Amino acid sequence: MTTTHNLIVSARAPDQLRDVRIQRGYTMHAEGSVLISVGNTQVLCTASVEEKVPPHKRGSGEGWVTAEYGMLPRATNTRGSREAAKGKQSGRTQEIQRLIGRSLRAVFDLKKLGERTIQLDCDVIQADGGTRCASITGAYVAAQDAVSWLLARGLITESPVLHPVAAVSVGIVGGAPVLDLDYVQDSSCDTDMNVVMTGAGHFVEVQGTAEGAAFSRTEMNRLLDLAEKGIGELIALQQQALLV
Amino acid sequence: MTTTHNLIVSARAPDQLRDVRIQRGYTMHAEGSVLISVGNTQVLCTASVEEKVPPHKRGSGEGWVTAEYGMLPRATNTRGSREAAKGKQSGRTQEIQRLIGRSLRAVFDLKKLGERTIQLDCDVIQADGGTRCASITGAYVAAQDAVSWLLARGLITESPVLHPVAAVSVGIVGGAPVLDLDYVQDSSCDTDMNVVMTGAGHFVEVQGTAEGAAFSRTEMNRLLDLAEKGIGELIALQQQALLV
Amino acid sequence: MTTTHNLIVSARAPDQLRDVRIQRGYTMHAEGSVLISVGNTQVLCTASVEEKVPPHKRGSGEGWVTAEYGMLPRATNTRGSREAAKGKQSGRTQEIQRLIGRSLRAVFDLKKLGERTIQLDCDVIQADGGTRCASITGAYVAAQDAVSWLLARGLITESPVLHPVAAVSVGIVGGAPVLDLDYVQDSSCDTDMNVVMTGAGHFVEVQGTAEGAAFSRTEMNRLLDLAEKGIGELIALQQQALLV
Amino acid sequence: MTTTHNLIVSARAPDQLRDVRIQRGYTMHAEGSVLISVGNTQVLCTASVEEKVPPHKRGSGEGWVTAEYGMLPRATNTRGSREAAKGKQSGRTQEIQRLIGRSLRAVFDLKKLGERTIQLDCDVIQADGGTRCASITGAYVAAQDAVSWLLARGLITESPVLHPVAAVSVGIVGGAPVLDLDYVQDSSCDTDMNVVMTGAGHFVEVQGTAEGAAFSRTEMNRLLDLAEKGIGELIALQQQALLV
Amino acid sequence: MTTTHNLIVSARAPDQLRDVRIQRGYTMHAEGSVLISVGNTQVLCTASVEEKVPPHKRGSGEGWVTAEYGMLPRATNTRGSREAAKGKQSGRTQEIQRLIGRSLRAVFDLKKLGERTIQLDCDVIQADGGTRCASITGAYVAAQDAVSWLLARGLITESPVLHPVAAVSVGIVGGAPVLDLDYVQDSSCDTDMNVVMTGAGHFVEVQGTAEGAAFSRTEMNRLLDLAEKGIGELIALQQQALLV
Amino acid sequence: MTTTHNLIVSARAPDQLRDVRIQRGYTMHAEGSVLISVGNTQVLCTASVEEKVPPHKRGSGEGWVTAEYGMLPRATNTRGSREAAKGKQSGRTQEIQRLIGRSLRAVFDLKKLGERTIQLDCDVIQADGGTRCASITGAYVAAQDAVSWLLARGLITESPVLHPVAAVSVGIVGGAPVLDLDYVQDSSCDTDMNVVMTGAGHFVEVQGTAEGAAFSRTEMNRLLDLAEKGIGELIALQQQALLV
Repeated sequence: MTTTHNLIVSARAPDQLRDVRIQRGYTMHAEGSVLISVGNTQVLCTASVEEKVPPHKRGSGEGWVTAEYGMLPRATNTRGSREAAKGKQSGRTQEIQRLIGRSLRAVFDLKKLGERTIQLDCDVIQADGGTRCASITGAYVAAQDAVSWLLARGLITESPVLHPVAAVSVGIVGGAPVLDLDYVQDSSCDTDMNVVMTGAGHFVEVQGTAEGAAFSRTEMNRLLDLAEKGIGELIALQQQALLV
Repeated sequence: MTTTHNLIVSARAPDQLRDVRIQRGYTMHAEGSVLISVGNTQVLCTASVEEKVPPHKRGSGEGWVTAEYGMLPRATNTRGSREAAKGKQSGRTQEIQRLIGRSLRAVFDLKKLGERTIQLDCDVIQADGGTRCASITGAYVAAQDAVSWLLARGLITESPVLHPVAAVSVGIVGGAPVLDLDYVQDSSCDTDMNVVMTGAGHFVEVQGTAEGAAFSRTEMNRLLDLAEKGIGELIALQQQALLV
Repeated sequence: MTTTHNLIVSARAPDQLRDVRIQRGYTMHAEGSVLISVGNTQVLCTASVEEKVPPHKRGSGEGWVTAEYGMLPRATNTRGSREAAKGKQSGRTQEIQRLIGRSLRAVFDLKKLGERTIQLDCDVIQADGGTRCASITGAYVAAQDAVSWLLARGLITESPVLHPVAAVSVGIVGGAPVLDLDYVQDSSCDTDMNVVMTGAGHFVEVQGTAEGAAFSRTEMNRLLDLAEKGIGELIALQQQALLV
Repeated sequence: MTTTHNLIVSARAPDQLRDVRIQRGYTMHAEGSVLISVGNTQVLCTASVEEKVPPHKRGSGEGWVTAEYGMLPRATNTRGSREAAKGKQSGRTQEIQRLIGRSLRAVFDLKKLGERTIQLDCDVIQADGGTRCASITGAYVAAQDAVSWLLARGLITESPVLHPVAAVSVGIVGGAPVLDLDYVQDSSCDTDMNVVMTGAGHFVEVQGTAEGAAFSRTEMNRLLDLAEKGIGELIALQQQALLV
Repeated sequence: MTTTHNLIVSARAPDQLRDVRIQRGYTMHAEGSVLISVGNTQVLCTASVEEKVPPHKRGSGEGWVTAEYGMLPRATNTRGSREAAKGKQSGRTQEIQRLIGRSLRAVFDLKKLGERTIQLDCDVIQADGGTRCASITGAYVAAQDAVSWLLARGLITESPVLHPVAAVSVGIVGGAPVLDLDYVQDSSCDTDMNVVMTGAGHFVEVQGTAEGAAFSRTEMNRLLDLAEKGIGELIALQQQALLV
Repeated sequence: MTTTHNLIVSARAPDQLRDVRIQRGYTMHAEGSVLISVGNTQVLCTASVEEKVPPHKRGSGEGWVTAEYGMLPRATNTRGSREAAKGKQSGRTQEIQRLIGRSLRAVFDLKKLGERTIQLDCDVIQADGGTRCASITGAYVAAQDAVSWLLARGLITESPVLHPVAAVSVGIVGGAPVLDLDYVQDSSCDTDMNVVMTGAGHFVEVQGTAEGAAFSRTEMNRLLDLAEKGIGELIALQQQALLV
């Protein structure tokens, strides 16, 4: 039996990222199409250029960057119900897609994009923790490919991308800070924090939640240190992938 | 003309909370019913005791604490559409009600609550920034009244409340950190951060978002300092209100 | 403990209204904002001026007056589910908001309003019977304030309001006609009738329903006598409130 | 061309009903199935016996009678959109089906029905005014057939029907009271009143609405006189149809 | 008791259609209105002319033909729930209305129709198998009447109808091929095939489904033979009905 | 730039399948997980075993096999809207998932499956025509893997699978019959037919649609010949994949 995706066993240091793979041109239709794998988590991120903007941007001369997020029903250990069949997106899904959209807009000069939309779709093929962070990190690469597509066609003359952007989760597991939680770690952690940062080392989003015990200022600082380290590495990997 | 709610003009220091008023027993049916005013923001927080739990808690011996959030259509400067008429809650509404629920659960020992639910409803009567934070701060007081109601009837013999919990927004406005943003400040700020903390000085949630420029670690630290100060004051006000 | 809303015990004659209080300027954003209390029933009625009309009025030179109605989940003795969370308004809610809209339109000259909408929102803060009637009576006052706002800004030069309008419920309780039923009376009555009348003593709506035994023409006449008396008093109270 | 349904031209006195035809056994599956024609208005009323009751009646030993109402998209002069395709019933539809249900329950002893439901479906095949009144009048006959079906099978031993019930619309058209308005009259009337009465001459529902000018007590009395006359005739026609 | 629709007992040869009746002008408002009875199955098919087209046809100079399908709740042996009340059309309903629309469009020259829509509504009054086929056969006659209406008013000068179109079901029941299955036959058959053909003897749709055992090429051929025979007879009946 | 999925150019004979690749074990959580590629069309088919059955099978001792279908928004040349965000599945989606479910059930002995469900999810990663046929062909392999999983755990002792099943599209393009249409061929064809057959050479479903001109019996026969050939080859490829 051909098994293309085996379980990747984690034997990492607490400050070590899982294995990250970024595959560009993964599907053929989208202007940008990236499969990002972070450990066993796999997200297909596509960027679609649409020559229209939402109502609040019409006539502004500015563009828009937005995102939608989904999870295939059996991306998870037990099957989740299909949101299209239930007839609505969960609160969790909406929260995540709003986060992805804000994170990407934070590194775009919407004026330079012109009155068009980059629509990002992040669909989780396989889930093992950290899907929202993988989505942001992968969506940035897909968005870059869409920008290159626009530049190559002369639709824009200057890149609207101000900085790279990437995201990672950090948390306190069994009392100790850990970088890049997988599903088992995420389920048992006391504090879970998702951090989005730019290539310039600034924060775009910090979302920390005490799942169990509330966390101290000191713990927060240690988590932010880990996140800074991890995001630096992720941004290097994005840049590598974009050089190919 | 009898005007019961005049505009409260802000002439505050950047590290000063707006005027806070917490009125208990605001409506007559709920086990806990609190109107919290933070400047011109007014939220009615009710706590309802229900002798049932959601499916994932049935038979566990544990209770549940959850929240719903709404805004009256004309709580805002221009009328927003009624979510019941549109047939769905916005992503923003769902995000906020999930945050309120998590924040309150963080200070509850669900075992001591017994297999029942405290349902919190936070309805914004008048909005001027900071409605999610006012909801959390007010919901804590309503939840305490519902707990007193349970204790008084002998339905529980020990309080399941572990700590007080309160929330405040902080942000960077015109380059400077400000505590407890009103709507005008919130609309123009570069970074907006909602912080939820317990009476023990620990963090339950930190949600920081760069609306404009990404923020540095130094700025983040200054914002957290402000939030700690404000939440300390809010928790004192909650305790005062509960003594009456 | 500060209790701002105590239970008001009814010891009234069968032809006596409950205590009525009409507070204008209750919230700060709306063009008209009225909290009406009828006994323990409290409804916040706001009137919003919107410079647009629904499709069937576009280009007609005429305006529109319409209403939406809602009840906070814990306005009632046991918590009702939130319509926004369920994703639809109940048949009862739709019936009531259609009634409020028709009642107010009956006293408006839509031509004089010009091509704009007065949107009434009636949200029940606390329920103890008669919420639809209190909504109509309060919405009239809020609508008048919105009209004053339009006149003060010169947007209209003549009031489009033709008459005052108010509403009251009457019913047969234990065989005897009673004015202005509270929740307990409403639950046990044989016949429940909601009557909407203008200041000129004419009927806008009469909705009588036999909950138990069907009612005779004689009983109907006695109910209408009571309603005429009660509405006369309500209209006097509206006028008083508008003089302040 | 075979035209089975020609336009029936009205040349009636103001106190005269339109031609009424009541066909029992109209379709083959339902326990009661009646096509009622009132002038050009045609409504198919079926009564279905279901051996279950809604949650609020479970274990009560009592039954339930309820109704649903619909209109075929091209029952009207211009096509209306299909409610099933739009995904929701209009406020008007819900109002009408609640009225039909209440009207029929008013003449049923739910204890004698036993713990089962009579579900009435009123579907308008062709509309020319007065569809809700025709639905009630026809549904009574269908319900009687369902009761006979239950009696014939020995499922009940005594009829739960207390009285006949029928409904008619009355209105003020061009200043004069008119019985049984057709669509053209209904569209131009000042006041429209739907009256539901039992065979004992008592009121079950009175719903009067001023479409244009508000109406006086005198006008109301004249309308009720007309309605009493019309309903007496409709009940005689129901009894005739049930004798066949 | 007047029973207008008695059960029609089938004693037919396996290659014999049930009794078919096509009544034009069945209701008064629609441009085409046909009640088609095929055995006990009765479908009201109306054709409405609307002077607009869906977005994908705007400005094309071409028209559109489309269909909606519904079943009255008690058209069937046990009551089905009302799709308008459930808030969505079933997959089966959508499949059928898409099939009706495609079938009719196959015989229309949309250019000759001009930029307008013929909207077909097929509502099942009574069901006994074969409702989708009866809908197509009846809708063709209703569409022809709508085309005549357009020609008579000079809105078009040439008929856009290229061919007649009709449909029939065939199946393998107890091992033998049968034409025009009723409900009992349909429920017990091994293979069910719906065939749509033009007057020229060509196929528009063939939809065969093995309900039980899969079917052989030989069986398929025998079913198609039966369908060709049945559709030839149905088209002759349509032409007869249109001559009246 | 690493391009993992290049456009596969078709230079095939009219009776030749596109390149087919069947990868088992594609994702790690599902009991069966297959990526099927047919030319540029790629569908991820997962089979999930659930120890419950839908209501109509409860207590029957029989199991159930059902399917859901979805398409990633940018699987297509221009982005389609996300069904979860729109809040409903299109008629096309429902048609396809009903077809997949019926096709698989046709080769399952539900008694031998025991009272459990095999839930198939077919999600289109990249679309280039023939997605429903690829879904059926791939879902069969995923279902087989789920059956092997059940056998390996001793949950069943005998395979409930009666036959292989596969599907292919055929059509008349430019007057000539063609096997396995890609998107360009599908868009321009006159007749499109989806054929589902078992390994025993029998038909499970035949769905032929005249997109342009209606098709003759002769053309139908030539299309069925092509389909038989193609499905024979697909079933051989399934068997090969299952041997690995």
